[in-house]
Amino acid sequence: MKNILLALVFLLSGSLVAQEWTPLCNGKNLKGWKKLNGNAEFKVKDGVITGTSKMNTPNTFLVTEKNYGDFILEFDYKVDEGLNSGVQFRSQSSKEYNNGKVYGYQFEIDGRWSGGVYDEERRRDWLYLLDKDPGAVKNGEWNRARIEAVGSSIRTWINGVACTNLWDDMTPEGFIALQVHSIGNNSKLNGKTVSWKDIRICTTNVAQYQTASTAPEINSVVNTISPTEAKDGWKLLWDGKTSEGWRGAKIDAFPKKGWVIENGLLKVQKGGGGESTNGGDIVTVKKYKNFILKVDFKITPGANSGVKYFVDPGLNRGEGSAIGCEFQILDDEKHPDARKGVKGNRTIGSLYDLIPATKSGKFNINKFHTATVIVKDNHVEHLLDGIKVVEYERNNQMWNALVAYSKYRDWPDFGNATEGYILLQDHGDEVWFKNIKIKEL
Amino acid sequence: MKNILLALVFLLSGSLVAQEWTPLCNGKNLKGWKKLNGNAEFKVKDGVITGTSKMNTPNTFLVTEKNYGDFILEFDYKVDEGLNSGVQFRSQSSKEYNNGKVYGYQFEIDGRWSGGVYDEERRRDWLYLLDKDPGAVKNGEWNRARIEAVGSSIRTWINGVACTNLWDDMTPEGFIALQVHSIGNNSKLNGKTVSWKDIRICTTNVAQYQTASTAPEINSVVNTISPTEAKDGWKLLWDGKTSEGWRGAKIDAFPKKGWVIENGLLKVQKGGGGESTNGGDIVTVKKYKNFILKVDFKITPGANSGVKYFVDPGLNRGEGSAIGCEFQILDDEKHPDARKGVKGNRTIGSLYDLIPATKSGKFNINKFHTATVIVKDNHVEHLLDGIKVVEYERNNQMWNALVAYSKYRDWPDFGNATEGYILLQDHGDEVWFKNIKIKEL
Repeated sequence: MKNILLALVFLLSGSLVAQEWTPLCNGKNLKGWKKLNGNAEFKVKDGVITGTSKMNTPNTFLVTEKNYGDFILEFDYKVDEGLNSGVQFRSQSSKEYNNGKVYGYQFEIDGRWSGGVYDEERRRDWLYLLDKDPGAVKNGEWNRARIEAVGSSIRTWINGVACTNLWDDMTPEGFIALQVHSIGNNSKLNGKTVSWKDIRICTTNVAQYQTASTAPEINSVVNTISPTEAKDGWKLLWDGKTSEGWRGAKIDAFPKKGWVIENGLLKVQKGGGGESTNGGDIVTVKKYKNFILKVDFKITPGANSGVKYFVDPGLNRGEGSAIGCEFQILDDEKHPDARKGVKGNRTIGSLYDLIPATKSGKFNINKFHTATVIVKDNHVEHLLDGIKVVEYERNNQMWNALVAYSKYRDWPDFGNATEGYILLQDHGDEVWFKNIKIKEL
Repeated sequence: MKNILLALVFLLSGSLVAQEWTPLCNGKNLKGWKKLNGNAEFKVKDGVITGTSKMNTPNTFLVTEKNYGDFILEFDYKVDEGLNSGVQFRSQSSKEYNNGKVYGYQFEIDGRWSGGVYDEERRRDWLYLLDKDPGAVKNGEWNRARIEAVGSSIRTWINGVACTNLWDDMTPEGFIALQVHSIGNNSKLNGKTVSWKDIRICTTNVAQYQTASTAPEINSVVNTISPTEAKDGWKLLWDGKTSEGWRGAKIDAFPKKGWVIENGLLKVQKGGGGESTNGGDIVTVKKYKNFILKVDFKITPGANSGVKYFVDPGLNRGEGSAIGCEFQILDDEKHPDARKGVKGNRTIGSLYDLIPATKSGKFNINKFHTATVIVKDNHVEHLLDGIKVVEYERNNQMWNALVAYSKYRDWPDFGNATEGYILLQDHGDEVWFKNIKIKEL
């Protein structure tokens, strides 16, 4: 009897909180939508909106008249081979910005990259790039897409497979728009189509309907720890505003010159290009033992810098940089050090003067890149932009034999300390750091 | 009924083959024994033979009048602190050899080293040294000793703990003798005693009563594989007599000069001290992948040589040694190369020019030493006289980074081959090799 009652209560409560979906298209005409930017055509037939590509017109958007903040959006899409498309959300258009061009988050529709999130006409970059194909897309067929935008959490799925998990706070609301991408004067793509159907949105009790399974998160809010990161044990090693937690490697306070904190960036000012001759290296106030360290950095042409770990600032009290293992930061193209050393062991990502980094993706001097150092006791890895470029074991004969050949040969037991400070190098070149985060293991 | 019959047969057969023991002492006098060499005194009382140390007399032996070949011998012994003693077996004495001094196998009685086998007055060396204390001996108390000498197998136990397991064929039979060791003019040891009791020997059906539990075997029969070694997968890499299985590293045949085979030794003749300039290196005809390689070597003062593995004789067709990883053989004291290289990476036992050997025991230029190389895929170890002196992993970034700093920097993918030839180096110095054995893994 009790069980039957419980079952009844369950059924009733279920029906009481049934998810409320609103269709975004009436299936007959484009009421509630407007076209922006380009001249590609959109038509509705039998509940399907079809956009057709057209030469010599810019990106064309079919835009909702309403704005949406927190929502769950679902739609089916199908696209001809070769055609790029997307669905904008929390997007904007104003004459004041870029002559009215649509900008904001785009759910990418482009073969295996579909489901990633691109920042259309704004930061002009991938906010969440699917380096690894989630294997969700069925080419040439209808695909079911889902976008959950709840506060700073932006997540996507295709055919039930988690694609994007982005933490970003740039725009809290905006319109939704269907894109027919510009094809320039490529006649081969002329007349190709992209279609949508069953577009529906939920805007009430959204948090309640969020999907549990998810892709790994990318936090693009500068110098913050997202709730997911916090839960996973990540902490800011730099607060983005003050010098708290850092000091000069050879002084007790933070350097009075050479380092500037502005606009959420920690900047090494240009000096003479010398090692620790201007503001000098800075080190953490605390020591670290087992950890994952992430540092975003951007360099100027010809610049030299580095992130060191297992640093003992007491070792070298004389001139030059403090002693520790270094994740090398360098403009390999323009700095002569890239061609010095042995077989590339002074290039970017290398364990400086010891182990050459395997060459990973392209290095773009105009962008921020991410240096990651993983230390698990004697096992150490360097990652450049998420790709492993150096891996080694320390505290063994081979490590000591390698050190014996290097610049560090005369420092006792180099690199074998159980723990040490983390250091950002001043090598007299302008370099910016941000998103300095650590997860102790 | 059948079971009862079987039990009866078992009981009867048991009694039929009961082990026959013969006491070696009648417990009253020394009938059947004679004294040789020294003047220390032996007395019998209440079944106990007691020897008393005496200053200024050589080793004194109480010797059985009978000779014994294959036997199991058991006795109790007890010795005063500080006194060294032993029990000879398969031993001899003749005026023609060493003026009648007793020589042959000795069951050592010397504190924790007891139970080892020493070759008294002959090869004058440990045949089986107990590097690791078996923990068998009770100091100052009666200890029960057991010697099993069956064919070439010589094994010992103290208080049931396996001590020696020697494979040796030098003397098939001889007397048994109790030793009171010389004490020179050390008055502190004067009058100290060593006692034996319950000495009994079994000489019939000996093989049947051999003990199962045993210590690890040492085979001291030169250039042979003992039955135990054969069962364990060991093979001779050199037959001790011919050049079979070997060729010049840069020629198809065995070198016509520079290498001599005589008296069970493979000898590199003295040349000008140059690398591969006389007879040249020799290599195995076969390749090896995963293995334990053992090579006994003896060098002349100032000599340089080496054992190489993962050798590719096709790589260096020009002057100098063939290319491979080298277990360095060197007179560290007199050869200048020991002080070249980096932090000792050219000393004996080192992985030449790459990883310095940790210093192990004393190196005696007048003796044979053993080089052991263990290869298990990418894991490699060097042992010098059984002690690990080098350990490394190849086929990884750190290995390649280390090679990049070394002499081998220009050889493609040095040391990363899956398999290769084994090489003995001619570095123009007189060097002897023997007992070259391999166990493929």
